[in-house]
Amino acid sequence: MKQISIHPFDNAVSLQGENGRYTGNTSSHYANMIGPFGGITVATLLHAILRHPECQGEPLSATFNFAAPVADGEFEVVVRNSRTNRSTQHWTMELRQDDTIVMTGTAVLAARRDTYSSTEVDMPTVPKYENLKTMTTAALPNWTKNYIFRVVEGDLTSLTNKDADSFGQSETITWISEASPRPLDFLSLIAICDTFFPRVFIKRKKIVPVGTVSMTVQFHTSSEVLKANGNSPVLGKARASRFNNGFFDQTAEIWSETGELFATTSQVVYFKN
Amino acid sequence: MKQISIHPFDNAVSLQGENGRYTGNTSSHYANMIGPFGGITVATLLHAILRHPECQGEPLSATFNFAAPVADGEFEVVVRNSRTNRSTQHWTMELRQDDTIVMTGTAVLAARRDTYSSTEVDMPTVPKYENLKTMTTAALPNWTKNYIFRVVEGDLTSLTNKDADSFGQSETITWISEASPRPLDFLSLIAICDTFFPRVFIKRKKIVPVGTVSMTVQFHTSSEVLKANGNSPVLGKARASRFNNGFFDQTAEIWSETGELFATTSQVVYFKN
Repeated sequence: MKQISIHPFDNAVSLQGENGRYTGNTSSHYANMIGPFGGITVATLLHAILRHPECQGEPLSATFNFAAPVADGEFEVVVRNSRTNRSTQHWTMELRQDDTIVMTGTAVLAARRDTYSSTEVDMPTVPKYENLKTMTTAALPNWTKNYIFRVVEGDLTSLTNKDADSFGQSETITWISEASPRPLDFLSLIAICDTFFPRVFIKRKKIVPVGTVSMTVQFHTSSEVLKANGNSPVLGKARASRFNNGFFDQTAEIWSETGELFATTSQVVYFKN
Repeated sequence: MKQISIHPFDNAVSLQGENGRYTGNTSSHYANMIGPFGGITVATLLHAILRHPECQGEPLSATFNFAAPVADGEFEVVVRNSRTNRSTQHWTMELRQDDTIVMTGTAVLAARRDTYSSTEVDMPTVPKYENLKTMTTAALPNWTKNYIFRVVEGDLTSLTNKDADSFGQSETITWISEASPRPLDFLSLIAICDTFFPRVFIKRKKIVPVGTVSMTVQFHTSSEVLKANGNSPVLGKARASRFNNGFFDQTAEIWSETGELFATTSQVVYFKN
């Protein structure tokens, strides 16, 4: 009997298999222009680690490399526990289609302990989620419909897609929440880390071909704190450091509404002129 | 006959072997408090890829996970080409000692093309290298003797190593150059990305046990530009985003003297109270 009450996110990251070898299927709910939204794929890979019987600790850091576009349809995920220490556990990951490597990655889980704590960066001062309008995603790929974006600055609305470049700044600050309520966890948080529109679109105010090549996420919180966040929106701030000769980077922060830094993330993205 | 004119850096990153399986030895010139300086080890792993016969393109992005401390002595490096595309090439890396995984990693090489380019972050405005004093490294581990640090802010001089925490800020801005001249390349640049003293030392003004768990570097330049830099100093800026329950992150930028952003890098670091 089909479970019809399952959240589209949980359905999209679901895997069959055991002991580090799993199969999954791309979900039309998270389709991007070509293939699936990268955020749902990295969440699926992290899921493969978290459901592994040897998994110990909580996500601390993960890197994903997009060696080729993920094609719509079935894929295989292989995760391996490289080493388990007292305070960290190290994993490698691979996503394969037609027996070819499509993604590689590594992840570190950690057992956290009570220590000195301090947040060094400032949360942006922004209007409340309630006081902003939801960005329309009518013309955007399917995956965007799973999120509510309320953009403070650096939105997509002024894109012209014309030949003339119109240079702005490359920063976006936006509230992000799940369109269909679901309590925040490491899987949905890592997907959110990839929801920023490519910096080159924001900077040049036009759409050019792009593709994330590598993505790293550093988690600064616990599953308990994420659970307590429930479905409250998170605030994302993303910027580029440099566009140069076919590639640019994007660094971003994800904050809770109450001012806790949940994650920092960076990407390298391919772009065409 | 022993080559006595080889630069200590080139000696430290040297490898024997072929086709992706190499052996190397830690170098006392780059010794840290325990084992080797992390920067020299990640440079050695990147070297293994760059000398591989299948290597295509230049370093774009790399992640290294320190699964266990590297012990002084011999180590084995295994690198595998996962996929070669028109514009990117994907590699996985492993460092082993006594047949146990000590480090894992991934790297992406890229073929760059002339495109729209723009630097989005500002180089810090700082006094010239010539006008600053060299930080003394007399009491510091061997690896530091390979570098000249001229610190603009956030130095190690005020560390008390006493029980009382003395909280400052967690940012360092410093000029860095090779003590023994050697033209900059991707290997020395990636090592420089790891030369920042742990943010927790700067913030708390005391030394506590630390260890880098994962490190990611994104390169924004070419070997040609690095070669033209010669032995000119580079400017590094590092800060933490959050210290929390046993781990903190560090993000950093590396700039040329002439204002070109060479690399951005992030780390997750374990610390003890």
